[in-house]
Amino acid sequence: MSTAPQIDYSTSPDRYKHWSLAVDGEIATLTMLIDEDGGLKEGYKLKLNSYDLGVDIELHDAVQRIRFEHPTVRTVVVTSGRDRIFCSGANIFMLGKSSHPWKVNFCKFTNETRNGLEDSSRHDGLKFVAAVNGACAGGGYELAAACDEIILVDDRSSSVSLPEVPLLGVLPGTGGLTRLTDKRKVRHDLADIFCTTSEGVRGQKAKDWKLVDEVAKPAQFADTVRRRALALAEGSLRPAQATGVKLVPLEKTAGPDTIDYAYVSINIDRAARNATLTVRAPQAAQPQDAAGIEAAGVNWWPLRMARELDDAILHLRTNELEVGTWILKTAGDARTMLSIDATLAAHAGHWLVRETVGLMRRTFARLDVSSRSLFAFIEEGSCFAGSLLELALAADRIYMLALPDDSERAPKIAVSEMNFGRLPMVTAQSRVARRFYEDAAAIEAVRATGGRLLDAGEAASLGLVTFDTDDIDWPDETRLALEERASMSPDALTGMEANLRFNGRETMETRVFGRLSAWQNWIFIRPNAVGELGALKVYGTGNKAQFDFNRV
Amino acid sequence: MSTAPQIDYSTSPDRYKHWSLAVDGEIATLTMLIDEDGGLKEGYKLKLNSYDLGVDIELHDAVQRIRFEHPTVRTVVVTSGRDRIFCSGANIFMLGKSSHPWKVNFCKFTNETRNGLEDSSRHDGLKFVAAVNGACAGGGYELAAACDEIILVDDRSSSVSLPEVPLLGVLPGTGGLTRLTDKRKVRHDLADIFCTTSEGVRGQKAKDWKLVDEVAKPAQFADTVRRRALALAEGSLRPAQATGVKLVPLEKTAGPDTIDYAYVSINIDRAARNATLTVRAPQAAQPQDAAGIEAAGVNWWPLRMARELDDAILHLRTNELEVGTWILKTAGDARTMLSIDATLAAHAGHWLVRETVGLMRRTFARLDVSSRSLFAFIEEGSCFAGSLLELALAADRIYMLALPDDSERAPKIAVSEMNFGRLPMVTAQSRVARRFYEDAAAIEAVRATGGRLLDAGEAASLGLVTFDTDDIDWPDETRLALEERASMSPDALTGMEANLRFNGRETMETRVFGRLSAWQNWIFIRPNAVGELGALKVYGTGNKAQFDFNRV
Repeated sequence: MSTAPQIDYSTSPDRYKHWSLAVDGEIATLTMLIDEDGGLKEGYKLKLNSYDLGVDIELHDAVQRIRFEHPTVRTVVVTSGRDRIFCSGANIFMLGKSSHPWKVNFCKFTNETRNGLEDSSRHDGLKFVAAVNGACAGGGYELAAACDEIILVDDRSSSVSLPEVPLLGVLPGTGGLTRLTDKRKVRHDLADIFCTTSEGVRGQKAKDWKLVDEVAKPAQFADTVRRRALALAEGSLRPAQATGVKLVPLEKTAGPDTIDYAYVSINIDRAARNATLTVRAPQAAQPQDAAGIEAAGVNWWPLRMARELDDAILHLRTNELEVGTWILKTAGDARTMLSIDATLAAHAGHWLVRETVGLMRRTFARLDVSSRSLFAFIEEGSCFAGSLLELALAADRIYMLALPDDSERAPKIAVSEMNFGRLPMVTAQSRVARRFYEDAAAIEAVRATGGRLLDAGEAASLGLVTFDTDDIDWPDETRLALEERASMSPDALTGMEANLRFNGRETMETRVFGRLSAWQNWIFIRPNAVGELGALKVYGTGNKAQFDFNRV
Repeated sequence: MSTAPQIDYSTSPDRYKHWSLAVDGEIATLTMLIDEDGGLKEGYKLKLNSYDLGVDIELHDAVQRIRFEHPTVRTVVVTSGRDRIFCSGANIFMLGKSSHPWKVNFCKFTNETRNGLEDSSRHDGLKFVAAVNGACAGGGYELAAACDEIILVDDRSSSVSLPEVPLLGVLPGTGGLTRLTDKRKVRHDLADIFCTTSEGVRGQKAKDWKLVDEVAKPAQFADTVRRRALALAEGSLRPAQATGVKLVPLEKTAGPDTIDYAYVSINIDRAARNATLTVRAPQAAQPQDAAGIEAAGVNWWPLRMARELDDAILHLRTNELEVGTWILKTAGDARTMLSIDATLAAHAGHWLVRETVGLMRRTFARLDVSSRSLFAFIEEGSCFAGSLLELALAADRIYMLALPDDSERAPKIAVSEMNFGRLPMVTAQSRVARRFYEDAAAIEAVRATGGRLLDAGEAASLGLVTFDTDDIDWPDETRLALEERASMSPDALTGMEANLRFNGRETMETRVFGRLSAWQNWIFIRPNAVGELGALKVYGTGNKAQFDFNRV
């Protein structure tokens, strides 16, 4: 049994403790006024607008609602409701008390949420301005850096800072170091000073060093923020007029080892330490025109499925740490999937389609960075076609059942246009391109089969599946593979998968998840940070951290 | 005081225990026949051609000698002198007994040596063939993968394998995973199987999966290797006729806190936990033509300085773990340096110049991946010009003394053509380009000053130094900077520096040092690998590893 507390990622504005959302035409304002006593767990107070996972769950939900419920919003202003403090970052006492897995999971979700802001900015025209109206430290600056622009109030006291190294003995590890370099292009020696100076940088110098985009005196601050927000809104893809889709709570029924949503199920085998994640195609006909999609709204299959899958992934990651392998399955008619994909492609410019595809993109991208072994099992009655084929392509291995003598029953896969760039990984490449190292001939051979159902033999010869296994061998081969996987060191598997899945092109996002997070995870388990006298543990106690000064 | 044993990286063929070097025209053969009892430390036997740091020190020396002493060699065949075993990788018992810093340092040097093979292949036309004449596991396969081609004997038993994950609970972490993907482009699901299968892959399947380049039956093996070696030699830049330069032992005198070479000195301040590394320009006139360079040979300043600096860096890294900051200084005449650089540029096509620049490139590249804070101090009497400016550009910070009222005494820096691509980082970019994120205008502004001596003010306005500090502030400012640095967590500094120094473009090498090594370092400190019942600890004892199955 898992010993982690059960965390629920679903919330709604009426339940927010820490954020408020106000919409004014094409500008939304997200105001952070963190409830000190509203921590997700016991034992720490969220002072000085510091955050824990609960705060980030609300932020994630709020951004999701802006995407779907407020389609005419084009720029989001992120600011603080607290006097003189924008945000002081992740709560140190929370970090000091947290287990290693908790810290790693917390950082991953935080990273995904911040990457999500940039994902919406890049793909869907939703822009973000950090209106830094007070001190902005650590994770607070990392959040600001995930916005398109940072406006800092020039009041002679408010600074931006990344004090993790000098104060806490850890890294600005949720994107901080990487955004300084890759996104903001801060010269590396200035970044060195910035990251080793706990008091931070203020005013014009912050702008000169490229740490912020603009500074404004208190009297001009609101106007400056509004001017920049409107300027960013100008080029947006978001519609001038549209009716939002209310994100009603997901319906799910949970048993001790199962969760069932409308189109997604989780089934855990605790003895074997694996979970089967099944995604079902819809049975009912799906709309093919914009009006039908709008009418279906939150129950439109692509949107509902993606919301459910997102929730299922986050649940398994956070609450089921011992479940080391996820078996990915689908159920339904492959032709239905291809038809849905044709609708997604035909209406790609419609705001609701674009946002739904965005959610699918970000949800599938969560699989790529999940520290679990992913095996896709393609069996009878499955529908790994088009968008749902991405589930298999995200997997570390793909087992496909071959029934050469029974072409009727034999499972089939198929590709659609959705597999060739519309659902990119955070490497900015499709999973097909990742699979073939961008080899144009291999990709073209696959693309040429578009819309055609492929059996295991053909899928294997195209290189689309790992194994085409007949029904005699299937039970033993899949069972042995799961048993073998479950016997190996979880840490070694996590490191191996992280390297093999990101096997080529690097982007800022892959560098956050790979280079930066891997270093942070190392530091997070070193005595200099988390030992009895480590910097994270003694913070705030008045004691000085004791370091082993050996350089490694 | 450091508690690490003193390791000396200098050796010579007459002292090799594990390798032998034979030269036959344009082909050299490096044969590995590892002396079981020749381990660098007590407590393990190097069975089955397994290696420790001592084996890699010999390999590094042998390749260095081929570069300089055997200039007409164009292809190096790396093979085994042991029956049925090519190499079984890093010795597990050595790893199991080693401290965390030792493992990390060992892996870093091993990575640098392997990258060095590829560096010589890419830049200098020295090619490598792995003649895999027996079982090739773990680090053995990683060594083979660093060669240009891998030929595997097809004898029905010899396989290539990366059994680290299933057998040891660690990664193929010295390049293995990254070369599978970036270099060999093995499909990620096949790589997953390969890396979780302890018995490895043999024969044609190894070729089909792109794990090796060719397979050959035992009777044809020698011919196949020779054919491929000759084919690789064909396009080589290496000279048809030339007299080698004998790499005589370095002269150095060591005190408790000092080492003095001819052109390099180390001076350790143990209380402050820093070392000053000083590189001196030559006093005597240096040759300007090919004949003069050949006559100077091993005493030619660029070659001798680079050999000394290389040795000094390796010494400090391995033997002085607590010395966390290296202060980089130079002494001599900047004009002398510019004149040497002019010679390096004028004779860039001469084999000895090319190999010497190659050694400088690899030596400076060691600085970039050294887990020490690097501060360059540009003071009176210094000569940070051209090639030696790379030392400053490699630093995390550059302090330059400003003497605006005394232009005579004021230190100057200067750039030469050597700063614009002839001494690239492993990112394949110059340090100037790294500094300015490839911004063409900023680079051009610096390049336009070529050959001109720049004082602190001008250097600062070009963005070439971090601080231009006057002589009143200099003592306090530099002292405080060193004290502050020494007070911070060494782990956090290491992680921060590794992220900020590699602030843009990623290559296979940066992915080995960043993504892969950071993951491996994390795993190397996790109980699942190194705890009492961790996989590395129990290997060979007959006990089964006990894992905490939580996924992190």
